[in-house]
Amino acid sequence: MNSQNFQLAKSFVHESYVKQAEQSRKGREKLIRKLLSNRKLSKDGWDEVTIRLFLQEIASMDSNNFIGNVGAGEREARIFSNIVRERNYGLGHGIGRSGDIGAIQPKAAGSSLLAKLTDSLVLDAMRIAGLKSIKSALVVPVATGMAMTLVFLALRTLKPRATKIILSRIDQKSCIKSIQAAGYEPVIVDNQVVEDEARTDVQSILNSLESDRILCVVSTTSCFAPRAPDDVVAIASLCQSFDVFHIVNNAYGIQSRQSNNWIELASRKGRVDMIVQSTDKNFMVPVGGAIVASSKVDYVKNVAQIYPGRASAQIHIDLLITLVQMGQSTWQELLKEREELFPVLKEELSKIARRYGERLLDTPHNPISMAMTLDHLESKGFSVEFFGSMLFTRFVSGTRVVSRNNNNKKVCGIEFPNGFGAHCTNYPHSYLTAACALGMTRKDIEIFCTRLDECFQEAYEKLALQKKEEYL
Amino acid sequence: MNSQNFQLAKSFVHESYVKQAEQSRKGREKLIRKLLSNRKLSKDGWDEVTIRLFLQEIASMDSNNFIGNVGAGEREARIFSNIVRERNYGLGHGIGRSGDIGAIQPKAAGSSLLAKLTDSLVLDAMRIAGLKSIKSALVVPVATGMAMTLVFLALRTLKPRATKIILSRIDQKSCIKSIQAAGYEPVIVDNQVVEDEARTDVQSILNSLESDRILCVVSTTSCFAPRAPDDVVAIASLCQSFDVFHIVNNAYGIQSRQSNNWIELASRKGRVDMIVQSTDKNFMVPVGGAIVASSKVDYVKNVAQIYPGRASAQIHIDLLITLVQMGQSTWQELLKEREELFPVLKEELSKIARRYGERLLDTPHNPISMAMTLDHLESKGFSVEFFGSMLFTRFVSGTRVVSRNNNNKKVCGIEFPNGFGAHCTNYPHSYLTAACALGMTRKDIEIFCTRLDECFQEAYEKLALQKKEEYL
Amino acid sequence: MNSQNFQLAKSFVHESYVKQAEQSRKGREKLIRKLLSNRKLSKDGWDEVTIRLFLQEIASMDSNNFIGNVGAGEREARIFSNIVRERNYGLGHGIGRSGDIGAIQPKAAGSSLLAKLTDSLVLDAMRIAGLKSIKSALVVPVATGMAMTLVFLALRTLKPRATKIILSRIDQKSCIKSIQAAGYEPVIVDNQVVEDEARTDVQSILNSLESDRILCVVSTTSCFAPRAPDDVVAIASLCQSFDVFHIVNNAYGIQSRQSNNWIELASRKGRVDMIVQSTDKNFMVPVGGAIVASSKVDYVKNVAQIYPGRASAQIHIDLLITLVQMGQSTWQELLKEREELFPVLKEELSKIARRYGERLLDTPHNPISMAMTLDHLESKGFSVEFFGSMLFTRFVSGTRVVSRNNNNKKVCGIEFPNGFGAHCTNYPHSYLTAACALGMTRKDIEIFCTRLDECFQEAYEKLALQKKEEYL
Amino acid sequence: MNSQNFQLAKSFVHESYVKQAEQSRKGREKLIRKLLSNRKLSKDGWDEVTIRLFLQEIASMDSNNFIGNVGAGEREARIFSNIVRERNYGLGHGIGRSGDIGAIQPKAAGSSLLAKLTDSLVLDAMRIAGLKSIKSALVVPVATGMAMTLVFLALRTLKPRATKIILSRIDQKSCIKSIQAAGYEPVIVDNQVVEDEARTDVQSILNSLESDRILCVVSTTSCFAPRAPDDVVAIASLCQSFDVFHIVNNAYGIQSRQSNNWIELASRKGRVDMIVQSTDKNFMVPVGGAIVASSKVDYVKNVAQIYPGRASAQIHIDLLITLVQMGQSTWQELLKEREELFPVLKEELSKIARRYGERLLDTPHNPISMAMTLDHLESKGFSVEFFGSMLFTRFVSGTRVVSRNNNNKKVCGIEFPNGFGAHCTNYPHSYLTAACALGMTRKDIEIFCTRLDECFQEAYEKLALQKKEEYL
Repeated sequence: MNSQNFQLAKSFVHESYVKQAEQSRKGREKLIRKLLSNRKLSKDGWDEVTIRLFLQEIASMDSNNFIGNVGAGEREARIFSNIVRERNYGLGHGIGRSGDIGAIQPKAAGSSLLAKLTDSLVLDAMRIAGLKSIKSALVVPVATGMAMTLVFLALRTLKPRATKIILSRIDQKSCIKSIQAAGYEPVIVDNQVVEDEARTDVQSILNSLESDRILCVVSTTSCFAPRAPDDVVAIASLCQSFDVFHIVNNAYGIQSRQSNNWIELASRKGRVDMIVQSTDKNFMVPVGGAIVASSKVDYVKNVAQIYPGRASAQIHIDLLITLVQMGQSTWQELLKEREELFPVLKEELSKIARRYGERLLDTPHNPISMAMTLDHLESKGFSVEFFGSMLFTRFVSGTRVVSRNNNNKKVCGIEFPNGFGAHCTNYPHSYLTAACALGMTRKDIEIFCTRLDECFQEAYEKLALQKKEEYL
Repeated sequence: MNSQNFQLAKSFVHESYVKQAEQSRKGREKLIRKLLSNRKLSKDGWDEVTIRLFLQEIASMDSNNFIGNVGAGEREARIFSNIVRERNYGLGHGIGRSGDIGAIQPKAAGSSLLAKLTDSLVLDAMRIAGLKSIKSALVVPVATGMAMTLVFLALRTLKPRATKIILSRIDQKSCIKSIQAAGYEPVIVDNQVVEDEARTDVQSILNSLESDRILCVVSTTSCFAPRAPDDVVAIASLCQSFDVFHIVNNAYGIQSRQSNNWIELASRKGRVDMIVQSTDKNFMVPVGGAIVASSKVDYVKNVAQIYPGRASAQIHIDLLITLVQMGQSTWQELLKEREELFPVLKEELSKIARRYGERLLDTPHNPISMAMTLDHLESKGFSVEFFGSMLFTRFVSGTRVVSRNNNNKKVCGIEFPNGFGAHCTNYPHSYLTAACALGMTRKDIEIFCTRLDECFQEAYEKLALQKKEEYL
Repeated sequence: MNSQNFQLAKSFVHESYVKQAEQSRKGREKLIRKLLSNRKLSKDGWDEVTIRLFLQEIASMDSNNFIGNVGAGEREARIFSNIVRERNYGLGHGIGRSGDIGAIQPKAAGSSLLAKLTDSLVLDAMRIAGLKSIKSALVVPVATGMAMTLVFLALRTLKPRATKIILSRIDQKSCIKSIQAAGYEPVIVDNQVVEDEARTDVQSILNSLESDRILCVVSTTSCFAPRAPDDVVAIASLCQSFDVFHIVNNAYGIQSRQSNNWIELASRKGRVDMIVQSTDKNFMVPVGGAIVASSKVDYVKNVAQIYPGRASAQIHIDLLITLVQMGQSTWQELLKEREELFPVLKEELSKIARRYGERLLDTPHNPISMAMTLDHLESKGFSVEFFGSMLFTRFVSGTRVVSRNNNNKKVCGIEFPNGFGAHCTNYPHSYLTAACALGMTRKDIEIFCTRLDECFQEAYEKLALQKKEEYL
Repeated sequence: MNSQNFQLAKSFVHESYVKQAEQSRKGREKLIRKLLSNRKLSKDGWDEVTIRLFLQEIASMDSNNFIGNVGAGEREARIFSNIVRERNYGLGHGIGRSGDIGAIQPKAAGSSLLAKLTDSLVLDAMRIAGLKSIKSALVVPVATGMAMTLVFLALRTLKPRATKIILSRIDQKSCIKSIQAAGYEPVIVDNQVVEDEARTDVQSILNSLESDRILCVVSTTSCFAPRAPDDVVAIASLCQSFDVFHIVNNAYGIQSRQSNNWIELASRKGRVDMIVQSTDKNFMVPVGGAIVASSKVDYVKNVAQIYPGRASAQIHIDLLITLVQMGQSTWQELLKEREELFPVLKEELSKIARRYGERLLDTPHNPISMAMTLDHLESKGFSVEFFGSMLFTRFVSGTRVVSRNNNNKKVCGIEFPNGFGAHCTNYPHSYLTAACALGMTRKDIEIFCTRLDECFQEAYEKLALQKKEEYL
């Protein structure tokens, strides 16, 4: 509705009411203007009406949505299904161009704007969360693992002779696969157990760096307890000394101030070339995207340019909606709430642990995940894996159980002598992990703890019954 | 997106692409401008992107959707459920004001615009369909029956002494109820059977008009065969002579050119005060609305003003969407298609009728509904009502079966000596009706006829089996 | 997904995961089962996935949504626009049948179920809110005013000689119109000013009841201050004595425990035949529906049967979604919050009033609305109407300003010697009303009060400036 | 609604209507059952109600949508925005698991089912289109270019010493980039001009195959005229002889029977290891997905396993909706229509070409794209690039203009002596391309040709004016 149309509306509705509506409409235009000129999260989140209006506006900027447009090419964003068209707001051209995921599409000004804007807002959100030194962020419509692979592929041209990547051990297949997929050999450096924590073995990394075939070191800042986030500061210094790239897998770390601070410190004390993070876990959108960020704009550009061809815009759509709906204030609040709930979950789990002869593992460096022992339960002959599945059938998802009684295991072609899961060889406890991640509520904690308690009770009842039966 | 925001978009996306998008955006604004200035169906239907954009714009004009609005009243269009808000585009204030359904709401410029615009478009669509002399149309969010009641209530003030309404017999309860609900006594004038058709008994209506207590005559132009549409031309003349109102129940008649022509002729030759029609059947929207139209603007205004308080905007939302999506061209095409399919359905039904010893009733005046006899089938001892339910369980809906063997029946407190359904006393056939209504397709006709044929086959097989069993 | 399909799903996905999903699916079926068997609000609200699933299920029960259904009638719920179909979940048949809005439609089992279920849930919600003695509730897709008219029309048959309806004065056009629309003459009994409150003049009502032409007395329980809710207990006794119907306009009163208690008491002490209330204000859905409720099931049935023909199902859809999403717990919480916020708003307004030489009017009986004087401001020569519009342009909606300087006014053909708005003749103050209605938040109160304060400041600045200019 | 709930519904709605609804419901269950058991496109497309119901069912199988589920992990598919949740049907877990995009997720049985089912349906759709010998199809949520890269990465482990990939020249950046991104050196074999067509230079490919460092040959079956699809049969034979992989980039070729036949023939006569195609162009969904297919199931599995980590489910959602909505019949019809329209577009373009002294290039092997010369226009001094932009500003998208006057150009670090665009060196014409792709309509062709004609007219008018001005 431009001013001319508002003028016409006055022939239907009294002038003063239309004026008021026009004033409100201008308020919305102003919100959009601010967003486009500041390229930052708005102070407060937008209401749904404005968001939907903005999405419609963006969609109407793509050529397939032009009235009277005729496509005579092979890719014209024709959409067969109404259901599909509607859920995509008619956006069909995806993002990027042949040979650069960050490029502008002539046919799709709206989708291009959407992509650029999302990148800017994500950058701002990350800086608000504490990653102040990053200067460029690229949203890629592939999840973290594949995004890591893209980063490695982009680095290849810069260091073509390299064949290996050092990975401070993290027991997630995708971390190893991301290296192998890029055609590199992973050099996995085992963690050391210090007190209860599995910590970076800086000395061994140093030793591994002696080779001249190392492309980069991959450190991980967000992980399941009892592993600690890697000592990124030390690794950053080593990488600087040895002149190898340092890539940080910051998967769900944006949500943790502590994690971000370490990365910032590492950037100052040494070298952090790119950090890769998930969109879903940090911003509560569906799985499928990742962010490649750096204080070095060119590195991010390299990744954008390595990506061959176009890509889905869906990750960007979800992320843009989410970020404008959050605004600065809600984003900060969410971060704060998580930080405040973390000790609550720790305290509640401790109580249950003590009640059943277990204890919370002492993992002071992990700001998101925690673990409690299951040693006592296991010692009574109860399968801890079964204990885990008991929780799942009680509609508790996301906990992980790792038993210390592991056998040699081959994962991605690599031998892990004491099994795979505890992030280090011979971890002395069996345990259950839980995480206080973004979006968890106080009520979630309550319910989770109640059900965990019930599982323990039931487990011990089963043991008692079993004993009784054996006795008979 | 105003021009300023498009300007800003150029800092994200190349200028020329944004220009193209802006040009397209202006095309959409122009569509809206034309709609608001012409108040007529656009030549061609709008695309979905424009429609959704327009709905968002309208919604954003209501105060409950103003950013930062605070409600301090008792009715602030607060919507509890997201699902509800979304399906209503955030429109919550309904239409009309205390005491006039056509009035503008200060709090809801968008909803008010929506209502006024819908009325205008409906008026245009009706004129395109052939009702050229009408000058005002009011969409009321009540279905046809209740709309008739509103019309009678509005007329009461103009003729306060009247206590009766003459109804040319139509065997639908809501027609009788609409009179009784308004507090009037229905004087039902039976139809005459002429050849196969049940036709208006003009002479009896004339006789009934002798009383000075008559508010109006209600004629019906769309009805199930074998009833013919009323002879509105003759009735219009009578009403003029006797100075009583003539209200036409044109329920689903807009879709028929023939029906509209009769009404036009009646207006010229005599008196037609208001015509009432359904929104769902004529415009393919969900049930729930009606249109009160007239060549006399004041009469329609009277109806608007009789309506006490606000009303739902949902009928208007659906109708507006539908009319802008149709545009003139599709609306005309739909009307034409129906007209062309009508003889096709007649022909196909005739064939089946002949195949089973029945015949299509000769009802030359009914332009939408038709009927075939079930006399032969019934004579063999097969229940025609059961035959109807056989069709329904075969997923054929909408046919009606009326048996000639009817007993005295009391409907709405009125005695119908030969039952209720055939629109006249002692109709000599049992029959099945079918209609070729707006939106029926050639494929619908095919499938319907196939299933009907199957039902006949099965019915005769059952009879044969029964006979065989009896024989044994 | 029935068990057979879950079985098949196991050939795609591991058995145990499918089992878990099936268990969860059964949980949803159980929620539906409970709803259908208890016909009451579930303890806790449903999640959106269950709601959408349920709506799809209901929609799939209507014949127009049957796969392979062919329509051969004139009303087949064909929907032209995808946008319309989708927002209505494909529900197109509306509710009710020719001649009874409460009747079941053979073609539309889903819509019929929807309507019946909604009525049951509304009944439960009303009983939870305190109206414990009501036994039947009917949702009608017309707003309160028109619903009142329907009630009067339904009563007509029971007392055909009556021509007048007594209305304890309430200055809302729709209340008067609802009587006139039904063809009755309103006998308006003015209120008395007692302290600051405009209260029911019971004695005058008694006097008016002497006529034998009285259909009913209409009392109002929810209204703008300084009018008090009517003394329904006294009126109920009078109606019992005089054997006339007592209809309570409880427009937005369900949300107030106090209001409900009075109605309950009135039912016990005297006679309350039907109570009519709005769906939008009490349940936070879009405008357009009302509820006719009674402890006498037959009376409600009468209203259902007076309604001629079908009606829109949209009101029911919105209401059903809202009620299942609320559940008992949220509904009770919402009621409680409103009750708690009412004194907060009163306190805050008092403060502002004192600051500017005004005061909160003492209206102890009104549990929702309140008013503050504008006498001081007006005495300085400031237009109080303009003061009201200042608030509106500052995006505060819903306040009302009434000046004591009113002239004779004719509303709906009736003379009001001292104007229309204050609910009584010669109310001694000019004032501004505000309401603490369901859904208002603490933040709303804050913002409202801030803006009100600003308006006062600006008003006095304007006055100062004006004085200065006059002086020059 | 299980049978128990239908039973309960009978207490609201007459038994027979509920029965009919239940019968229809069973029809829907049966559709789902057939789909799950056949894993093939249903004969006819599903209606929207069934599709939405099925999507809700699938969504309800994921743990984040379980009622009462509590997440205690770091990835719990929490979704912040309602708008996002709704457009994703609450599906948040994406597809695949750490290290295998084809793996089942314990937390997300619904998403896993969705992914597997989509793969099966795509396989069936491809076989219907003519690719009868393929046995496995994997939908990957990356577009064609990146999918090619994944394929190369997956092959690396099978032939670790290879460093080069032979590409039969195709002038699209993403084709070259996809090779470089995987860390391989592209060996580009130029095409030969035979008559008007740029055809595979089989001899040169043979020569290039002499090296022992070749990973594979990449052939392309869908391309812009005047390039012909590669001679995949000859290449397949060469690859077999030399024992190198043969990867076919069949980008938008599924839609062409001819293209599919060649691939089938190539499979029989030689070797075709994997074929990669776009989801958007072949199935009319938004950009962002690709399909890796093969007659060798293990190869596809390799690609699934190379993908590190999870991925977005959005591509699968859109594709599943589209395929069930199409069904076999519509899919076949769409393919047939395209085939029938191709000669129509050719004929219409020829006419225009002749009118302006141009001609359609003779490219008998290209089944989708065609080209007409712009030689005459260019010879008059008119810029052909500007001619292209004239079309775009007239809302014709998708045509491409290539001038023969090209300079040396470096693309992706590779020199192209006569420019990049014509797919071969020294192509003797300037030309404009157009494609008859899936979804193009007869009306599109008309409008396109009208606008093209107008552009020619305007171009020659400009030239005339210019000449006149020069003369003056």
